[in-house]
Amino acid sequence: MYTSDLEIRVRYAETDKMGYVYYGNYAQYFEVGRVEALRNLGLSYKELEEGGILMPVATFNIKYLKPAFYDDVLTITTKIIAMPTAKIRFEYETRNEKGELLNRAETDLVFINKERNKPCHPPKDFLDRVKQFF
Amino acid sequence: MYTSDLEIRVRYAETDKMGYVYYGNYAQYFEVGRVEALRNLGLSYKELEEGGILMPVATFNIKYLKPAFYDDVLTITTKIIAMPTAKIRFEYETRNEKGELLNRAETDLVFINKERNKPCHPPKDFLDRVKQFF
Amino acid sequence: MYTSDLEIRVRYAETDKMGYVYYGNYAQYFEVGRVEALRNLGLSYKELEEGGILMPVATFNIKYLKPAFYDDVLTITTKIIAMPTAKIRFEYETRNEKGELLNRAETDLVFINKERNKPCHPPKDFLDRVKQFF
Amino acid sequence: MYTSDLEIRVRYAETDKMGYVYYGNYAQYFEVGRVEALRNLGLSYKELEEGGILMPVATFNIKYLKPAFYDDVLTITTKIIAMPTAKIRFEYETRNEKGELLNRAETDLVFINKERNKPCHPPKDFLDRVKQFF
Repeated sequence: MYTSDLEIRVRYAETDKMGYVYYGNYAQYFEVGRVEALRNLGLSYKELEEGGILMPVATFNIKYLKPAFYDDVLTITTKIIAMPTAKIRFEYETRNEKGELLNRAETDLVFINKERNKPCHPPKDFLDRVKQFF
Repeated sequence: MYTSDLEIRVRYAETDKMGYVYYGNYAQYFEVGRVEALRNLGLSYKELEEGGILMPVATFNIKYLKPAFYDDVLTITTKIIAMPTAKIRFEYETRNEKGELLNRAETDLVFINKERNKPCHPPKDFLDRVKQFF
Repeated sequence: MYTSDLEIRVRYAETDKMGYVYYGNYAQYFEVGRVEALRNLGLSYKELEEGGILMPVATFNIKYLKPAFYDDVLTITTKIIAMPTAKIRFEYETRNEKGELLNRAETDLVFINKERNKPCHPPKDFLDRVKQFF
Repeated sequence: MYTSDLEIRVRYAETDKMGYVYYGNYAQYFEVGRVEALRNLGLSYKELEEGGILMPVATFNIKYLKPAFYDDVLTITTKIIAMPTAKIRFEYETRNEKGELLNRAETDLVFINKERNKPCHPPKDFLDRVKQFF
């Protein structure tokens, strides 16, 4: 299993009139979580795209337990729990500064060959870097 | 079962560099879908809040099948498939102008008494208006 | 002068913890305002882009007078007050349902030839459709 | 004059189909810029609000010179160039990793007494901390 932690501070723009982080904004936090998790493995999502691989999200599931508030520093824990195939699953947990678990989520992303617009396998370098954790 | 359709045109701001609607933005479309579904029943989410009931989202699950693009007019179909208890489930389908199914999603929202910050039951008027469909 | 009105209902996602529409979200409303203003002239911004013309924003100025709130139906008035040259100015006013002026804004957009990545003049059809108002 | 620098990495969500950071998203970057500028002075915007002072934005002007792209690490330079009165002006410059100036902006924020919903002066502690730079 591969795990990577990231801190994100809640912006005013991300709150709503309830005073909570709007439920749809966690998708952005998890995007940043998985991109930084890959960067920590030596992989740049930007370079993957420049190399012709897109990784659109195929499923996104989230269970909200407690709200986050303005100016909170959240810790997003991103996990890869299985070797990627033509898709890759990321799991996420969001915690606040008190260590309270705010939500749990998961996304499945598919590898797409941009030119042929077809599913494909991840590049060898991608697999090699992930493999060391399995 | 209660069903309500809503048309939303994709804003430039909602696209990403892949040219697709960003995966996190559907949460907003579904918010609008369920609010308009309730309005069509004679229920105002704004007035519910003013009356002391909050409805935060407890779970959100979405499966993406095809992307939406800039300027597409999407039809969001919002369904209530069971009588609400202390929570209410909404199901959603997004289709483009060709009638293609782009994604399916569901959210569970809980009823919260704002003053006591505790789960509660929906107001009688809310239940009465939904009941006619079950 | 050419004027076009558009109604937009404020989404929950667009509010912030102050209970107001977040100051940065008006940029989206004005994007929709100018795109619909062009559509009412028979011009599709999407087709302009497909034809190789981009229209990035060069300046954006806004003066906020009063806030907008959740579920408000706002009227965005978009004006073109001069013939476009290599750039086009749009002016905006936002009003709420009581007719109160909430803000005034303006944007300058430049015409860019996508292939050459250089400023260019608007297409003849664009100018012809705008010209009837001047 | 008081100056504070902040680095922000561009999220995928913040790009649009042109591949640029959407013009409306800089408002969020500048919000973060000024909040961190205040924090570096020992001032918490969150605590100001909790103490009954709101600081809504009254004007926002921005001139875009060059676009920012996905994954760019931007430096937001935030300046306070004059002592605040019943309002405070912040000036901003955004630069990319090559040091290129991408845009210049300014915002005026007003101090509002939340309870009375009226303009007010900044708290003494606020003025004291800013004063040392003038």
